[in-house]
Amino acid sequence: MAVNLPLPIPSSLIPVAGIELGHAEAGVRKANRKDVLVMKLADTATVSGVFTTNRFCAAPVQVCKAHLEGARIAGVPIRALLINTGNANAGTGEPGLANANATCTALAQLLACEASQILPFSTGVILEPLPVDRIKAGLPQAIANLQADNWYNAAEAIMTTDTQPKAASRSVVINGTNITLTGISKGAGMIKPNMATMLGFLAMDAKVAQPVLDHLVKQVADQSFNCITIDGDTSTNDSFMLIATGVAGHEINDVDSPEYAALAGAVTALSQQLAQMIVRDGEGATKFMTITVEGGETVEECRKIAYAIGHSPLVKTAFFASDPNLGRILAAVGYAGVDIDVSKLNLYLDDVWVAKNGGRHPDYKEEDGQRVMKQSEITVRVKLARGAATATIWTCDLSHDYVSINADYRS
Amino acid sequence: MAVNLPLPIPSSLIPVAGIELGHAEAGVRKANRKDVLVMKLADTATVSGVFTTNRFCAAPVQVCKAHLEGARIAGVPIRALLINTGNANAGTGEPGLANANATCTALAQLLACEASQILPFSTGVILEPLPVDRIKAGLPQAIANLQADNWYNAAEAIMTTDTQPKAASRSVVINGTNITLTGISKGAGMIKPNMATMLGFLAMDAKVAQPVLDHLVKQVADQSFNCITIDGDTSTNDSFMLIATGVAGHEINDVDSPEYAALAGAVTALSQQLAQMIVRDGEGATKFMTITVEGGETVEECRKIAYAIGHSPLVKTAFFASDPNLGRILAAVGYAGVDIDVSKLNLYLDDVWVAKNGGRHPDYKEEDGQRVMKQSEITVRVKLARGAATATIWTCDLSHDYVSINADYRS
Repeated sequence: MAVNLPLPIPSSLIPVAGIELGHAEAGVRKANRKDVLVMKLADTATVSGVFTTNRFCAAPVQVCKAHLEGARIAGVPIRALLINTGNANAGTGEPGLANANATCTALAQLLACEASQILPFSTGVILEPLPVDRIKAGLPQAIANLQADNWYNAAEAIMTTDTQPKAASRSVVINGTNITLTGISKGAGMIKPNMATMLGFLAMDAKVAQPVLDHLVKQVADQSFNCITIDGDTSTNDSFMLIATGVAGHEINDVDSPEYAALAGAVTALSQQLAQMIVRDGEGATKFMTITVEGGETVEECRKIAYAIGHSPLVKTAFFASDPNLGRILAAVGYAGVDIDVSKLNLYLDDVWVAKNGGRHPDYKEEDGQRVMKQSEITVRVKLARGAATATIWTCDLSHDYVSINADYRS
Repeated sequence: MAVNLPLPIPSSLIPVAGIELGHAEAGVRKANRKDVLVMKLADTATVSGVFTTNRFCAAPVQVCKAHLEGARIAGVPIRALLINTGNANAGTGEPGLANANATCTALAQLLACEASQILPFSTGVILEPLPVDRIKAGLPQAIANLQADNWYNAAEAIMTTDTQPKAASRSVVINGTNITLTGISKGAGMIKPNMATMLGFLAMDAKVAQPVLDHLVKQVADQSFNCITIDGDTSTNDSFMLIATGVAGHEINDVDSPEYAALAGAVTALSQQLAQMIVRDGEGATKFMTITVEGGETVEECRKIAYAIGHSPLVKTAFFASDPNLGRILAAVGYAGVDIDVSKLNLYLDDVWVAKNGGRHPDYKEEDGQRVMKQSEITVRVKLARGAATATIWTCDLSHDYVSINADYRS
C-alpha cells in the first residue's frame, strides 16, 4: 500500500560504468528470496559513506568503517560491497564482528583482493547470530551473475519489509561529459533522522577526489536520507554509501567549483527521490506528508519542531483517519522543546490557513481542513516568525498496518 | 481492555473532610454524560500544582496559574476547582482565555467568591471554541449535588477516552492524627514525561503550609505522574493538583520533619497508584511495562534511556505481539542519546538474562523470552555499569486499538 510509488521500470535504470551487481538466494532467513547482493567496483572508484548514530551500531557498520579507514591508509581501493538481508548482525558482540569479517574474507578470496577492500552491510532481525555459512555458500551464485545491467534485481535483493524495490537513475552533463547516476534504497521501519534500517547506495561514473566525495556524502545525506522519518526509531545498521567509479574521467576535486555544484545538485535530487521512496513505502503508510517549518532562528530548531510533528503518534493517526484534528499539530509544536512565542505562530495545511497567531483562524472551516486531509499527499507548514531559518522533512501516517507489520515481523 | 485495572469500589473511596464534589451533564461535546465537575474546598485549604511544559499550554492552564498566583498575593484561599471534559480550550488564543475566565466568573457568583478563587481545568479536543454557555448552564446542577461522598462520580466526570474511572484512597497516621487521602485521575492518550492530557487531583485533610505543599507536589509528580508514558505526546492541558484542606489540623510546615516524610510517603504511593492506573488504561493497552534503567551516571540519563525504550513504536508493537524481538530494545538504548559503552550493557526481561555485555547472552533461549512476553505485566531492566543512578518509568504497548481510538476520536 505504498503511497504514489510506481514500480521502477527496469529499463529506466541506467548501468553505471565501473559497477557490476550480482545477487543470490542464500536462504539467510527465508528460502527462495534474493537476500545477498554483491556490488563490484572498478579499481578507480572512490567510496564514502555516512552511518547510523546508534550506539548499538551493528557489527557490519563497525567493520565497514574500519575497512574504509584501513583502505585509505593502505592506499588501496574498495573493490566490493556485500549486503545481506534477513539478519542485521546487530547486538551480537564480538562473535558478530568475527562473522562480519568472515563474510568479507570469503568474498575477498573470490575477487582476489584483501578482506579490507570489502564493505559489509546487513539488515534484518537484531540480536540473532549471522548465518555466515549460508551467506558464504551464496557468494558464488552472486559472483556468477555479476553484470552492469542488474540494478532492478539489486534493489529487490536488499528489501526487508519493503513492499517494492526502490531504484532510480538520473544523468547530468558536466563540462560536456555525461555523468550517469543510479541508486537503490530500502526501508521501511526504524526510519528516523540520522539514518534508519535504511540502506542507500548511489553510484555514479564521475571521478571524484576522496575528500570531495567525503564532503558530498554528508551534504547530500543532510538534505535527503536525514530528512525522513517513519517511526522515530533509529536503526543499528543505517548506511548511505556514495560511489564514484571514476570511469567517466574529468576529476572533480574542488567543492567550490561549478562542476561540484552541478554534481551535488544531481546527487541530491536522486538521493531525495530515493529517500522519499522509503517514506512512500513506509510500513503501513497511506499518506505522504511534507512538513516544513519556516521562520526559525536556526535550522536545528526548525528540524526539532518538524520532527516533533512527524513523530507524534496522535498527529500520524489523525492523518491516517483523514481527520482534521489539527490541534494535535499545535500540541506537538508546543512540546518540541523550542522556546517559541505561540502567539506568533501560523499553521497551514496545503493552501488552508488553519491557525493564525496561535489560535484557530477565524475563517478556518472544518470542511477545508477535511478536503486537504483526504489527499494522499499533504504539506504541513508552520511559520514561527522568529528568524529566517527553515527545514523540511518527509514522513507518513500511522495505520493499523504499521502495527500489524511490526507485531508480525518475525512470525 | 485496561490491563489489570479493577473498577474502583465506590465505598472504598473515603471522603476527605473539607472537600465536596458536584458533577453535571452539561452536554459540552456529547449529551447524557458527566462532563463538568466542581470540587469545592474548605477555606482552610492550601492548593499547589504542576502543569504541562507544552508551549501551547491551554487557556485554563494559563488562567489556573494566574489565579493561584493572584490568590496568594491577595492572601485569599482557592475555593473551588472547575473541570470540564469534551473540549480542551487549547490553541484557542485570546478568546480561549476569555472563555476560561468566564466559566470562573460564573462559578464564583454561585459560590459567592472572587473569580480568582476558582481554578479551571479542561480536557478534550484542541483548537475548538469552549462552549461556555453550556458549561455555565450546567453549573447549578453541579452545585446542587455537591457532597463529600461523591468521588466515584467525580472520577467518571473527568473521563475522556478512559475506559473506566480512576480513583483510590489511602490513610496515614501522623503523630496520632489519621490523615485521609483520596485522588482521581484521567488519561489516556497524550501521556508522556512532564505531564499528559492527564489530570490528577489528590486531596487530603492534612494541614500543610503553602511552601511545604509547593515542595511536595513537585517531589511527588517527579516520582509518579512524570514517570509514565503512553505515546510520548505531551498534552497542552496536563495538570496535577494537590489539595490539603487543613481540616485535620496539626500543620506540617517543615520539609525536613518526620511528619513531612510520612505524608510524602503516603502521597507518593497514592500518586503512583493513580499514575499507573492511567498507563493500565492507556489507549489500546494490553500490556503494562515497568522499565528500569540502573547503573547510570545520572538519573537524567537513566530516564532518557528508559523513555527511548518506552516510546519506541517497534518495542511497543513487539510487546503487543508478545514477540521477544528484543534487539529492538537494544536499538532503542543505542539511540537514546547517551554515550554508553554498549559492551558493558546487560538486559533482563523479568528474571531472564537476555543480553550480556552488549550481545545476546549465550544461555538465553527464545522460549524464556517468549514466556515473559506472554505475561500482562513485564519488567524490562537495563544495567549500564556507569554509575549508581537509577530510574523507573511505566508504559504500555502499542496495539491496533491505539490506532483505532485515535483515528476515530472525534468521529
